[in-house]
Order: sequence, then C-alpha cells, then structure tokens
Amino acid sequence: MAEVEIVKNKQVLLRDYVSDFPKESDMIISTDSTISLKVPEGSNGVLVKNLYLSSDPFMRRFMQVSQPARSKTGFIPYTPGSPINGFGVAKVVDSGHPNFKKGDLVWGITQWEEYSLIAERDSLFKIEHTDVPLSYYIGLLGMPGLTAYAGFFEVCKPEKGEKVFVSSASGAVGLIVGQFAKLLGCYVVGSAGSKEKVDLLKNKFGFDDAFDYKQEHDLDAALKRCFPEGIDIYFENVGGKMLDAVLLNMRMNGRIAACGMISQYYSDKPEGVSNMMWIIYKRVYIKGFSVFDYYHQYSKFLDTILPHVREKKITYVEDIIEGLETGPKALIDFFNGRSVGKQLVVVARE
Amino acid sequence: MAEVEIVKNKQVLLRDYVSDFPKESDMIISTDSTISLKVPEGSNGVLVKNLYLSSDPFMRRFMQVSQPARSKTGFIPYTPGSPINGFGVAKVVDSGHPNFKKGDLVWGITQWEEYSLIAERDSLFKIEHTDVPLSYYIGLLGMPGLTAYAGFFEVCKPEKGEKVFVSSASGAVGLIVGQFAKLLGCYVVGSAGSKEKVDLLKNKFGFDDAFDYKQEHDLDAALKRCFPEGIDIYFENVGGKMLDAVLLNMRMNGRIAACGMISQYYSDKPEGVSNMMWIIYKRVYIKGFSVFDYYHQYSKFLDTILPHVREKKITYVEDIIEGLETGPKALIDFFNGRSVGKQLVVVARE
Repeated sequence: MAEVEIVKNKQVLLRDYVSDFPKESDMIISTDSTISLKVPEGSNGVLVKNLYLSSDPFMRRFMQVSQPARSKTGFIPYTPGSPINGFGVAKVVDSGHPNFKKGDLVWGITQWEEYSLIAERDSLFKIEHTDVPLSYYIGLLGMPGLTAYAGFFEVCKPEKGEKVFVSSASGAVGLIVGQFAKLLGCYVVGSAGSKEKVDLLKNKFGFDDAFDYKQEHDLDAALKRCFPEGIDIYFENVGGKMLDAVLLNMRMNGRIAACGMISQYYSDKPEGVSNMMWIIYKRVYIKGFSVFDYYHQYSKFLDTILPHVREKKITYVEDIIEGLETGPKALIDFFNGRSVGKQLVVVARE
Repeated sequence: MAEVEIVKNKQVLLRDYVSDFPKESDMIISTDSTISLKVPEGSNGVLVKNLYLSSDPFMRRFMQVSQPARSKTGFIPYTPGSPINGFGVAKVVDSGHPNFKKGDLVWGITQWEEYSLIAERDSLFKIEHTDVPLSYYIGLLGMPGLTAYAGFFEVCKPEKGEKVFVSSASGAVGLIVGQFAKLLGCYVVGSAGSKEKVDLLKNKFGFDDAFDYKQEHDLDAALKRCFPEGIDIYFENVGGKMLDAVLLNMRMNGRIAACGMISQYYSDKPEGVSNMMWIIYKRVYIKGFSVFDYYHQYSKFLDTILPHVREKKITYVEDIIEGLETGPKALIDFFNGRSVGKQLVVVARE
C-alpha cells in the first residue's frame, strides 16, 4: 500500500459572523491544519490544489449571516472556525470521480486554503482551453463572465442601438456587460466610485460615457445628462438610490436585469425605492436572476466569448494579490471598492 | 338642407386641478352647454349619446395633474372648465366615419356629458354582442376585463395550481383576476378594505381566502398566514407597503403584474419599497403593463370570456348610480373605496 502524503494546509478561517461591515480581523490565517493528498478510500470527491481565489460581492453577505444549507450552488455555508469559500481555479491532485483526473485544471467553488477536498462537483467545471490566462476562469470566462452574458443577453434581450446603463461598471461583471453592449452596437454608460475608475471606463473599456456616483449630488440629473433620451436597459448591481433614480429615466418597455444590490447588502434597514410607479408608466420589466440558473448555458457562453478574447476585442483587467495570507486584506479592500476589474488572490502559480 | 337639432348638453366639468384628495366640489355640474346632434360637415367624428360612464382609479391622477398631450390611449387631458372623460358605453347618434353608423352601440373613451362628439376613434369599439348587459362593456367586457386578462394571462403566464394573490381584489379588475385564476385551477387570495368586501370575495366570488388589509397590523404576517408556501403570482393594484410585504413572500421565479399602485397615486412622497433584494433572492419578475398595449387582443379576450359570462361561470357585481348629476359624488365615493365591483353612472338607458 502506497504511503499517503500528509501536508500542511494554510487556511483563511471566518472568526465569527460579522454584524457590521467586515474587517480584516474577522478572518484568521491558520497554519494548524493538515490534509492528505489522496481522496479517502471509496470517496468520489476531488482533491485540488488551489491556484487562484476570487473575491466576490456575495461573500460579504455570507460573512454576515448564516446561510441556508448547501444548495445546488455548491456553496458551503460559512461557519465560524471554518475556511471561507468562493470561486477559484485549481488543479486536481487526486480524484475519486470519473469525470476528473490528476492534472486536470478546474474552476468552481473551492475553499480559501492551499488544498481542498471538494465533495460537491455540480459546480466544478473542467478547463478545456488553456491558451488564455488561467485566472480568467474566475473572471471573464467564469462566473462574472457568465453573469454578464446571462443578465445582458438572456434577461435583457438587447438590440443594436439601445441605450444601456451599467452600475458598478468597473467591477468584474460590469466591465464585461459594457463591452458586450459595445460589441452589439449599443450606447453604454457606466457608473463607478472614483475618478480613476471613470477614466478607465471611458478610455480603456470603450464606454461612451461614465460618471463617479460619489461626486454627483443628484443621480437623476447625472442620468438625464448621460441619457437625454432615457435608458432602455439597466444592468443593476447596486440598488437603493441609484435604482430609484434609474426608474425615473427608463424608456418605454425598458428592461432591468437585477444582478446585485450591493449598496443594500450590509444594511439592516435597506433604503426604500420610491419611484415604483414608473414601472407602470414606462411598462418596465425587472427580473432578478442568478448565474446559477444559467450554468447550463456555460458552453454556449464560452463559444460566444472565446473568439472575442483571442482576438483581443474584449479587454479585461485583473487586480492580482499574491499569497493566501494576504487574502483577508484583499477581500476587505475589495469590499471597500478599492480594486478595479477582477480582484483575485494567487495561492500558487501551478 | 335639413334642420340641425341643437340640444342642451349637461356636463361634469373639472373646476381646477386638485392638489390633495379630490372632493365633490372639485367638479361642477353645468347645464350651460348645447350641442348639435349632427357631426360637423366634412368631419369624420362620431357623435354619441352617452349611456353608462365608468369610474376608474386612473381618473384620480388625471384630476390632480395636467397630462401630456393626447396619445394613442384616446384620453383628452383634463383641463379646468372642460368635462372630465373616461370609459363609457354610448349609442351613435350621427357619424362622419365609415366604421360607425347611427344606432351602433360602442364603448371607449367618452366625456362625462349627455352627448359627446368623439374625434379620436382608435379606442372606440363597436359592441357586437348584445345578449349580455350593455354596461358590462365598461367592466367585465371592457377595459377592466381586458386589463385582468392581459395582466394575468399575458404578463404572468399562470399555471394550474399556482398560488395567486390579488390586491384591491373587490375592485373592477381584481374580481375578474380572481375568477380567471379560479377557472384555471389556482389557489387565490385577495385583499380588500372592509369586512363586507372580504366576505363577498370568499362567499360570492370564490376566492379561497381574503383579508381586510386595514385590520392587519402586519401585512407580512397576513400573507404568511394565507400563503404558507409563498406566492407565485401577484396582481399588483396598490403598491407601497403591500408590495413591500409581498416581496418577502414571493416564491422562486414568482411573477408580479404591476397594473396600478393606487396607494401611491395621490402622494407627493411615495412610500419607499425596501425589500427589493428579494427580487434577486427569488428571481422575481416584475412587469408594468397598461391595457392600452393589449387592445389588439380584445377580440381574443372576448372569445375567451363571453362563453364564461353566458354560462354564468363568472360573477360580476356593479354599483350603479343613476343620473349624470350624481357623477361627482359617485366618483368621490369610488375614490374613497366605498363601492364594490364596477362602479358606473347611468346617463341614459338607451
């Protein structure tokens, strides 16, 4: 019988559920844990070495409240003393499952640690195309990319020439939505939270216009300035005041894909949205959606986007943080809006 | 040349735009006007004798603000000193238009007066079936019926067994939505503003359950009591607090047809809706709609509903007020929620 290699396994643990805005000290770097590099006898789990870990907005919510039991999403509820989890790119070290073998590259839900034994494989995708950066599989070619694709094309059913507004436009999803819209021939405006981000949107990512919502005392006026004829499509990432202002500016039969409402995530008392009557006046369509409902479209999405990526018709920016031990700081910086594009933590390069 | 008959034409005029809740004295009964019973030479207008006039929620808004210029809806903006207008059933007295001739019965937008010269005919429908009460053409077989049909079937795409909630359920539209839902085999609950209305919903109109929203201090609790498994479809007539509570109780992929938000119509500061995040959590679909977008489906609607009406599978209640001079009081009583079912004013019987 072959000797089983046991190694140290550095982890980022949740200290306790967070009641207010998360801070670095709400997580602990632990070096106490060890892991066997073989899947247990008889298990159909997949043992992976984590390469890239993704910081995503939903993680803030998961740190704040106990989630319902594991669902088809593949998430493991965050529990104090256990590693946090999210999207990652990883390499298979050992597999008890016929679909995965040693050496395979995968993306999906994994834990914030060096090695993870993944029992839930419904949301684990094998990476087939490696001529593009591997890290893209937690960004442009992963959950954010599929989110942008599903929300823009499937939910909003856009047409050439339509006027598109994207909030959190410099974020991992917003950047892609804006570029999809430009590729289709739409007019696209984005909002973001700093001058630097606004400049990037206009100069690097091809947005027709952009504004810093923190510098606008009147969001309705800012939208009217950018959309004198109104908005056909709103890709909603923030909620609250922005949604309220957008409703006043929707065109007849406008569509809103509600992807996230990050301004409301850590509020016990969410801001009320007052301009709901405009939903009727302008026959507005609002649809909440989740990327998990569109996993079956992943191949179709990949077939659509890969040619654009290879031809460099889509620009993507990553904010790369080195080392699992810098994970907590990276995550908090991300929650504070300090990153542009896809923020990710490098655990190992291969 | 035949002599043209000129007759007195009693009218209900708007005194001035209303800033607060309308009251009877905001309208004037005028007997000063006269009208020729022939359409002017060369005009393609239609001159009608008004029989039944309809009180509808949107009229409150029209009394409060100046509306944009006449659109495809056929409404004439309310102006101080002019008769108010709305839906009515009328008889053609003279016609300059080839589609209408003397003696035809019609329904559509007309003025609150004895005789009207109707220039806009896009929203004037000829009444072909007279084996049902004529007044039904401003209720069950008119705008409220088509509104219920479009909002329930076209917007919500209901399926047998689904859980349906209707607010303002004892109103002209709500009553029909509830009965459509029952005919399809759904579970239906309605809310209304008095015990009498709630009893009618349960005992006369076949709702599975109903509650008086004025007696519930916690609308969320009331909805959880009636919908322990949540709501698939919400037919929205009221907005505000009710919508906020409904969002907490929507099931996955639930649908909301936003038909009206009467609780918000006469408020300068509409109530904020705080639970917008549930749109994402539950992948909710909200669509604002207007009956005017579904006029092309009127024949299809009539083919669907007429057999049910003839077989008495649909029950309808009318609150009939006699005499144009009682119109202002009727309208204010209606705005105050004092009527059940379709409220209408009889100007003449034929």
